[in-house]
Amino acid sequence: MNYRMLRYLLGCILLIEAILMLLPLTVSIISNEDVMPFVYTIAALLAISLPCAIFKPKNTQIYAREGFVCVSSAWILLSIFGALPFIFSEAIANPIDAFFETVSGFTTTGATILPAVEHLPRGILFWRSFTHWIGGMGVLVFMLAILPTAGGEAIHLMRAEVPGPTKGKLVPKMRQTALILYGIYIVLTLLEVVILLLCKMPLYDALVNAFATAGTGGFSVLNNSIAGYQSPAIEWVIAIFMLLFGVNFNLFFFVIIGKIKDVFKSEELRTYTIIVTLATVAIFINTYRMFDGAGDCLRTAFFQTASIITTTGFATVEYNAWPVLSKTVLTLLMVIGACAGSTAGGLKISRVMILGKNIVREIKHMIRPRSVNVVRLDGEVVPDETLRSATGYLTVYIAVIILTMLLISIDGMSMETNLTASLSCVNNIGPALGDLGAMNNFSPFSNFSTLLLSFAMLFGRLEFVPMMVLFSPYAWKKR
Amino acid sequence: MNYRMLRYLLGCILLIEAILMLLPLTVSIISNEDVMPFVYTIAALLAISLPCAIFKPKNTQIYAREGFVCVSSAWILLSIFGALPFIFSEAIANPIDAFFETVSGFTTTGATILPAVEHLPRGILFWRSFTHWIGGMGVLVFMLAILPTAGGEAIHLMRAEVPGPTKGKLVPKMRQTALILYGIYIVLTLLEVVILLLCKMPLYDALVNAFATAGTGGFSVLNNSIAGYQSPAIEWVIAIFMLLFGVNFNLFFFVIIGKIKDVFKSEELRTYTIIVTLATVAIFINTYRMFDGAGDCLRTAFFQTASIITTTGFATVEYNAWPVLSKTVLTLLMVIGACAGSTAGGLKISRVMILGKNIVREIKHMIRPRSVNVVRLDGEVVPDETLRSATGYLTVYIAVIILTMLLISIDGMSMETNLTASLSCVNNIGPALGDLGAMNNFSPFSNFSTLLLSFAMLFGRLEFVPMMVLFSPYAWKKR
Repeated sequence: MNYRMLRYLLGCILLIEAILMLLPLTVSIISNEDVMPFVYTIAALLAISLPCAIFKPKNTQIYAREGFVCVSSAWILLSIFGALPFIFSEAIANPIDAFFETVSGFTTTGATILPAVEHLPRGILFWRSFTHWIGGMGVLVFMLAILPTAGGEAIHLMRAEVPGPTKGKLVPKMRQTALILYGIYIVLTLLEVVILLLCKMPLYDALVNAFATAGTGGFSVLNNSIAGYQSPAIEWVIAIFMLLFGVNFNLFFFVIIGKIKDVFKSEELRTYTIIVTLATVAIFINTYRMFDGAGDCLRTAFFQTASIITTTGFATVEYNAWPVLSKTVLTLLMVIGACAGSTAGGLKISRVMILGKNIVREIKHMIRPRSVNVVRLDGEVVPDETLRSATGYLTVYIAVIILTMLLISIDGMSMETNLTASLSCVNNIGPALGDLGAMNNFSPFSNFSTLLLSFAMLFGRLEFVPMMVLFSPYAWKKR
Repeated sequence: MNYRMLRYLLGCILLIEAILMLLPLTVSIISNEDVMPFVYTIAALLAISLPCAIFKPKNTQIYAREGFVCVSSAWILLSIFGALPFIFSEAIANPIDAFFETVSGFTTTGATILPAVEHLPRGILFWRSFTHWIGGMGVLVFMLAILPTAGGEAIHLMRAEVPGPTKGKLVPKMRQTALILYGIYIVLTLLEVVILLLCKMPLYDALVNAFATAGTGGFSVLNNSIAGYQSPAIEWVIAIFMLLFGVNFNLFFFVIIGKIKDVFKSEELRTYTIIVTLATVAIFINTYRMFDGAGDCLRTAFFQTASIITTTGFATVEYNAWPVLSKTVLTLLMVIGACAGSTAGGLKISRVMILGKNIVREIKHMIRPRSVNVVRLDGEVVPDETLRSATGYLTVYIAVIILTMLLISIDGMSMETNLTASLSCVNNIGPALGDLGAMNNFSPFSNFSTLLLSFAMLFGRLEFVPMMVLFSPYAWKKR
């Protein structure tokens, strides 16, 4: 384990967090609020990060396991320091709750322990939603984009942080890939801000909601989420942007460089479109009689479908009151999630497709044991390594969900609550069903469960492996 | 596809069903009940099976896909004909409900559409529980045991019907293996009958409950299941026998031939013992305050653990009223199930172990990509083929559960009901939670859902592949 390089990289990441925190500090200053929570936090971050980040070690070589350890400990550290403004401002007095809220932000889950948010300082709420934006594309990807790297370590860090079953480089250099991804991310976010301003949303709200949309997070500054704006136009805009941020960012790159053909070749995008259409139609038909007009019903069905499949979690309606078929459709969308290489959570559509195609192959193999069958995606053969890791992923996914559900059931809440809370955290969705109240806030859980669910979110966001490596004694053993 | 051989084998199986039905017919005669339902059914079975079974085709060669098609269509046909006595006697007037009840019997699920059973004829109830016994070890295994076979087809039939990730032959000849398995099965069942008689249970009840225990089914002749006998001794006996029938039958064979060492070497048996102990202790502690004394509590905790892990579904208590931790533990036991090569349903412990060990291997591979890791069970390397099929199994398992849950949600019952009904049927357990009433009968479902759940039980009992092959167009295509 290259501890010097690990220390250096973690130092850089915390330094970046200190710099990023200048933005909410600015909001606090403009809003005439108490700036000290941010000042103290930035001071603490600088005190720790500067000594670590100032000297780059001679040996910058890291291997896969250092990459995993670096990414997982970076996310834990970012969340611990990110929680400080909530604690210092007493917006969230309990440190474990503050940690939960910050993890929920960075992992773009959007689950909250706050029953109401409108009374909180604007700077604090800005930071809360900004964590979505930072976590959406990944802090390490950001670091790769701005830091000159030797090359060897970049691939391991990127692989550990970017979600999805296959990780492709867009261009030969990792740094350029990271720059392109962040460029697209920033442009799309700004585009949303501008359109929301045109829909007459105030600048502050437009920024905050765009952060939450871009990261597919779901934290909002109104107690009633997006429903609070009472504007069909805003709902349409946000629904469409949620879906856009659920698309594999590689496809936007193909659009930019003019490879439109490659976009249409994407099986994942086609399946994504089909699932969204089918789910919207199913919910539209199933809930039609609950609405005054077809327009309202269609918009709401589309918005909820987009919000849930991208695991954002924005709400425009209390769908707990919907018929069970619609609720079941939404639950399935939670599990499936959107495209790989997007900011969304869940299993990811391409992974579900690979799992499905693998089954077809296994059945064909059973029927004719001597025939040769392969799994293809976008016309290319999926290597056995990827198949193995997709099926392994499913096993871990289920094990983590079940274990979380079992352990939080000690608190004595209903089984529906425990199952959906566990699903919600591992898939980075946000809302859950059952006892958690109409606003779905997680405050009823004990400290133990809150901490456990925080780690469930981290496990899910980093797709399990980095966190499992961090906690695996095998990784720390010398050869 | 060797259609002649298929026709011949299916003929033999239906002939066996006709012969087996002589037993409930005898019960009907002794009980002075209407014998015509059985007479008509036996006549119909003979009329169809005799012409098919009388001429053995010259070419008896069958391949894997014929094996799967034979097993899956055999189970469907057995259930259709097995449902006739219920329909003719008007015990269950609706043919789809009768089909459900029979499938539930043969698949040893034990889910019922009957709100009460005590008013039904003894012959009918005998047949209902006897289907558990027949389905527990498998009808085709029975056929292999009594019919002289050429050899080639036997392995394909046995592989398709016996549950578990690995299928070993006990002795080189398939027929002898089948004979040994049925021998053990019969001896254990008779032993239970004798002990239940010693506990002062009437002969008829002892037989019927032993059938349900042996098949790990769960149909009972009292409305209150085993609680109706109000006898701690009976509860202990049945609990222990449920656990015995959840053990891999190969281990009993090792005991018989004196290879006791091999029994203790079995990792699956050790894990089974540990899980049962832990679950019993957890439930004991969690429900202690609900009972009058430690003895009552321990017995009930042990009984429910045994009943659920073996997917039998007998009840001595209304565990819907238990704290959520105990209910969650029970739900997890449902999914895990007991040992491979037993009569129990669920994922099977050895499959869960293989999946878990596979994860450890994948993580080790991630940490040190160039290290060589293998999965071992009972000290032997698990071949990649078995690993692939275990992970593939998990994917299909989840897909079938989710699809069933989605489609039955059209009926509008609660999500908890739909999820647990789907879990209960696919895992061949029996009871579910939620809207299905205190007795957990499935009568509230529509005909469509009842039929769907019937097939879910068949998919689960035959471990998916045979049914998927039957419905796969690829299997019927000529090369």
